[in-house]
Amino acid sequence: MNLPSRITIREVAPRDGFQSLKDFIPTKQKLETIKDLVKAGVREIETTSFVSPKAVPQLADAAELMAKVPRKEVDHSVLIPNFKGAQNAVAAGADKMVVLISASESHNQANIRRSIADSLAELDPIFSIARENRVEVIGSAAVAFGCPYQGEVPEADVFRILDAYAARKVNAVIVADTTGMATPLRVERMVARFRERHPEIPLVLHFHNNRGTAMANLLTAAAAGATIFDTALGGIGGCPYVPQAAGNLPTEDVVCMLADMGIETGIDLLSIIQAARRLEEVLGYTLPGQVMKSGPRDPRLAAEICGIGDHL
Amino acid sequence: MNLPSRITIREVAPRDGFQSLKDFIPTKQKLETIKDLVKAGVREIETTSFVSPKAVPQLADAAELMAKVPRKEVDHSVLIPNFKGAQNAVAAGADKMVVLISASESHNQANIRRSIADSLAELDPIFSIARENRVEVIGSAAVAFGCPYQGEVPEADVFRILDAYAARKVNAVIVADTTGMATPLRVERMVARFRERHPEIPLVLHFHNNRGTAMANLLTAAAAGATIFDTALGGIGGCPYVPQAAGNLPTEDVVCMLADMGIETGIDLLSIIQAARRLEEVLGYTLPGQVMKSGPRDPRLAAEICGIGDHL
Repeated sequence: MNLPSRITIREVAPRDGFQSLKDFIPTKQKLETIKDLVKAGVREIETTSFVSPKAVPQLADAAELMAKVPRKEVDHSVLIPNFKGAQNAVAAGADKMVVLISASESHNQANIRRSIADSLAELDPIFSIARENRVEVIGSAAVAFGCPYQGEVPEADVFRILDAYAARKVNAVIVADTTGMATPLRVERMVARFRERHPEIPLVLHFHNNRGTAMANLLTAAAAGATIFDTALGGIGGCPYVPQAAGNLPTEDVVCMLADMGIETGIDLLSIIQAARRLEEVLGYTLPGQVMKSGPRDPRLAAEICGIGDHL
Repeated sequence: MNLPSRITIREVAPRDGFQSLKDFIPTKQKLETIKDLVKAGVREIETTSFVSPKAVPQLADAAELMAKVPRKEVDHSVLIPNFKGAQNAVAAGADKMVVLISASESHNQANIRRSIADSLAELDPIFSIARENRVEVIGSAAVAFGCPYQGEVPEADVFRILDAYAARKVNAVIVADTTGMATPLRVERMVARFRERHPEIPLVLHFHNNRGTAMANLLTAAAAGATIFDTALGGIGGCPYVPQAAGNLPTEDVVCMLADMGIETGIDLLSIIQAARRLEEVLGYTLPGQVMKSGPRDPRLAAEICGIGDHL
């Protein structure tokens, strides 16, 4: 297996995680988590989303949060579903905006209440306002490995979205397994096809763990040459309050695995574990992350951090 | 990635899972789970363990259970720590016995209260009684990828155990990541070394998910040529009552991933998901398995099985 020597983590807990929680997390607490992430070495954060506060009340404080986030050493992306979101992202001083379109018609309708064609038609003004304001654009294709409504999603439908981003000289793309339907051979094929077709565009993979495959998918993508991954502190995301949901890959689990394999992320393992444990304490329920419970592989560090001497 | 066309599941929930639960699971319930497993297509089960009922009261019904298990179409392995266990396994009519020795001295002492040398010294009588009674012997090396007491476990210490099994013409070996310390490159190396050294001996990998790497480890091992894996229904195992523990790979998650990649296991996905859901109902708390919550990838089947139409 050939793995890259360095992998970049795009931390999505503040957006994909906090958006999925039942309760509104106070802005002050969001800021604490973001500061913890930056302190641990995270340099790319998907910080919030400019969507309708009626649809996603959990992120209704997007503008206020963006006004207060630490700016040194870290880039803040914000998710936007449309041109209005792009305007808000620019006004908020986002470093990057993530445009989101689903690869299936049914999911795009459910998620952002418009057709794929309508979403695509708004890309030009979105890219224009971003360029004018020197905000980078990341183009995301949701449900790229399967859709919870229609099932299989043809590869051509995914590339219809990705090619549209590429034609506009997007700064990076995200291929997202929104509901955990990816398996390793699908991931290997997708990464290979994308790199053949758009070798110049940075590729981000975004995996949810609804069917237990997220870490295997990350490993496969990395072995196929992908070097940027979305992960979330503690593995939050999806929707912890409904039994069928499952979160993102836990950042600290990914950092632990990669560190053991000699792959640099720039993130300090002990600090990111502590950050996950603080988040769990604040939220008040058990998060999906495993390393925050078991500790690092080194038994002395595990005992120190998790207060456990016996991991049997 | 080159993956095998067929993978064999050794189901360990009845032993590694039930042993880890706080409560004693009644023999009748254990039998129901075993029948569910066989009905779903499982053909190899690690059914129980002949250890001291004082040490593991959860499996105190080993002889009674073995007298009642279905025998058609399925092989029953039982775990044994010593010669007395081997005698009991023979008396109970086990098809196979799994001899267990840890690759670290501290773990062997903690787990079976003797030195590795003493464990090795008893292999000859164990193999003899097994051979005389036509019971197959599977040799297991625990903590093969790291020990919760000493940390790193040198490869030579693992092969000291595996070579001892090989010298006695063992029927198969298990290389076990007892507390979830394996990561993919360690697994790839171990599988390659074992296959170089003992190409004629069937190799079983046993992964726990304490640090979120178990499925990535399974995938890596399969890509390196391994074709037999220990998994547990619902992902039970480890010890669900202590926060740092994590179970085995959930059988139904593994079957779901492999099926999507065209790898045959002989296990019916819907039946094994139903079995996991029944087990969760009986136990009365949430199990680690993901597919039992999200359902198969096909949205219609997911809705049918999990009663959920919307997997967002």
